[in-house]
Amino acid sequence: MKVRIGSTVKDYRTVWLDGRNVRMINQPLLPHAFRIATLRNHKETARSISTMIVRGAPAIGATGAYGIAQATLEFRGTDMKKFRKHMRAAEKLLSSTRPTAYDLFHGIKTVMDSIMKAKSVRDAQNTATATADSYADWSATNCRLIGGHGGKLIRKGWNILTHCNAGALACVDHGTALAPIRDAHKNKKSIHVFVDETRPRCQGARLTAWELAMEGIRHSLIADNAAGYFMQNGDIDMVIVGADRIAANGDIANKIGTYEKAVLAKENGIPFYVAAPSSTIDFKCKSGKNIPIEERSEDEVLYMFGKPDGPFTPGTVKVRIAPRETKARNPAFDVTPAKYIKGIITEKGIFRPSQIRKLKG
Amino acid sequence: MKVRIGSTVKDYRTVWLDGRNVRMINQPLLPHAFRIATLRNHKETARSISTMIVRGAPAIGATGAYGIAQATLEFRGTDMKKFRKHMRAAEKLLSSTRPTAYDLFHGIKTVMDSIMKAKSVRDAQNTATATADSYADWSATNCRLIGGHGGKLIRKGWNILTHCNAGALACVDHGTALAPIRDAHKNKKSIHVFVDETRPRCQGARLTAWELAMEGIRHSLIADNAAGYFMQNGDIDMVIVGADRIAANGDIANKIGTYEKAVLAKENGIPFYVAAPSSTIDFKCKSGKNIPIEERSEDEVLYMFGKPDGPFTPGTVKVRIAPRETKARNPAFDVTPAKYIKGIITEKGIFRPSQIRKLKG
Repeated sequence: MKVRIGSTVKDYRTVWLDGRNVRMINQPLLPHAFRIATLRNHKETARSISTMIVRGAPAIGATGAYGIAQATLEFRGTDMKKFRKHMRAAEKLLSSTRPTAYDLFHGIKTVMDSIMKAKSVRDAQNTATATADSYADWSATNCRLIGGHGGKLIRKGWNILTHCNAGALACVDHGTALAPIRDAHKNKKSIHVFVDETRPRCQGARLTAWELAMEGIRHSLIADNAAGYFMQNGDIDMVIVGADRIAANGDIANKIGTYEKAVLAKENGIPFYVAAPSSTIDFKCKSGKNIPIEERSEDEVLYMFGKPDGPFTPGTVKVRIAPRETKARNPAFDVTPAKYIKGIITEKGIFRPSQIRKLKG
Repeated sequence: MKVRIGSTVKDYRTVWLDGRNVRMINQPLLPHAFRIATLRNHKETARSISTMIVRGAPAIGATGAYGIAQATLEFRGTDMKKFRKHMRAAEKLLSSTRPTAYDLFHGIKTVMDSIMKAKSVRDAQNTATATADSYADWSATNCRLIGGHGGKLIRKGWNILTHCNAGALACVDHGTALAPIRDAHKNKKSIHVFVDETRPRCQGARLTAWELAMEGIRHSLIADNAAGYFMQNGDIDMVIVGADRIAANGDIANKIGTYEKAVLAKENGIPFYVAAPSSTIDFKCKSGKNIPIEERSEDEVLYMFGKPDGPFTPGTVKVRIAPRETKARNPAFDVTPAKYIKGIITEKGIFRPSQIRKLKG
């Protein structure tokens, strides 16, 4: 993805392996500061997922893959029995970081499977790092393909609503929901994006707005409450969101609030698309009812992060917005039933929710 | 309304006339500080409405009424022609503060009408202050009656969702949407309230949560995005909101996001009620399409207010949450068509939206 710092423009991926370190864009600091976080072992990498230094289904899939590769590199010695025990513990730790996104388990499993037949620790280390790198490349390529397929749906001058951040920062590169938007922009379709703020963690306001600003794509930030208003007034032509898990029946789990936007889109006759690589589909999961929904700390609702104005305020500040006595509930995801979804944009093409069983490989 | 400060409990109204001063609870400081603002002339009172020191349809109706009374008291001399000119200017200024809520115009008109036949400035001053006081009393009484009618709808153990603040702070006292909730609590129905945060100004997180905490009513703050999730999971039995204006056909304008909750309630078979005094009905307004919708500063979306933790942080802080380059759109209200509304709870009873024409008096 394009990152402008002052007058220089650099190309970044969200996460990569650098020797024995996993390195990643430190997302909680955005949009106020652009910093690279360095995770020196797989335990730090696991914590980077649970604390959301990195987030977004494909991005945490790649981080899980790199975390496994990193765990192989940490092992000292040649005893394969001890090595396997070490790796099973690493797999368990990395898998326990977040429950909803399916890509996480897919990324971890891909690298774990690759070292099953390794004859030596050295062999496993070489295989794991190569597999993790090719997993990340494959993930980035899938997003580019999603952009090509989804971009064709977008007409000149359209206003597109997106929720949360399903951009390059949620993936290795390019994005899922933002990939078709980047494609349409590249093809000079003069689009405009309505960006849902996406409380409680404001991934729309902080991350999607930042990515669009970096690319020079026209956008307007709106309170999550205002999406229905703009739909009702005919100001939105299309909705595209990402997905954290897709069930076999085409129901999808995505960031809290996605279900609300899907219902409103249907009510107003606006096409609602989900963009996700086919690796997001959990064929063992029959319907959305079977997807585990993470409930996070109430502090995410009771507090906000931001940057005070003025030259003497370098950092971000955490401020409380609710009374001391007040408790909060904080489900991080919701389930959008298949009936609200016009199409699922994958690297293999666009499918109706009822058709995705075809993708079972 | 009940206000606990330390171990003392006092009863407050939202706004009142104190000699020549309009006094009111300073709402932007809540929930972090409880302070009374003093407005020394009608121009300051007008500014208290536009800057939202006071907000909520019935509350700004009473503030408009008091502002007119205050304007009569400011006039020096006995020249009735000059007095009428002064009053027309005051009426114009107070009416221009906010466009959507109908109560504002109703409150202003009630006091202006009362002084039409005044024979002297002194006579007008006496009439205006008495009329403004009785307008506020009448407004408070209406809210108490709304509480009685609406309270009957609520069953034991129910979970009720409310959006924005339609509490005592939005009225002279008691509230509109919160009046039935207070009534049910008083009648020991062990209710629980889901409080929508209500971005961008967080009236739910700051004001509704504060009122419920003061009354000891169980509540959970949720991101606006999470209301659909809890509805879908069967956790919400009823939705009650206020209204800023009701059109003759039963469409209502209320805080941005109300339309979203109404559509979601209908989709999930949950009764959606609007609580408002009949003075909120604008019979000259045929449908919701004719209600002017205020668009406020984009800064309300780009920034948040809050209080940093810790003993050395007495005030509130304004923090930016979006990139420098990002613009925002900020409609303050939306229109909920009558078809989504199960009933309108007024001081005269509960009516279907199609029945409100009966209330034209």
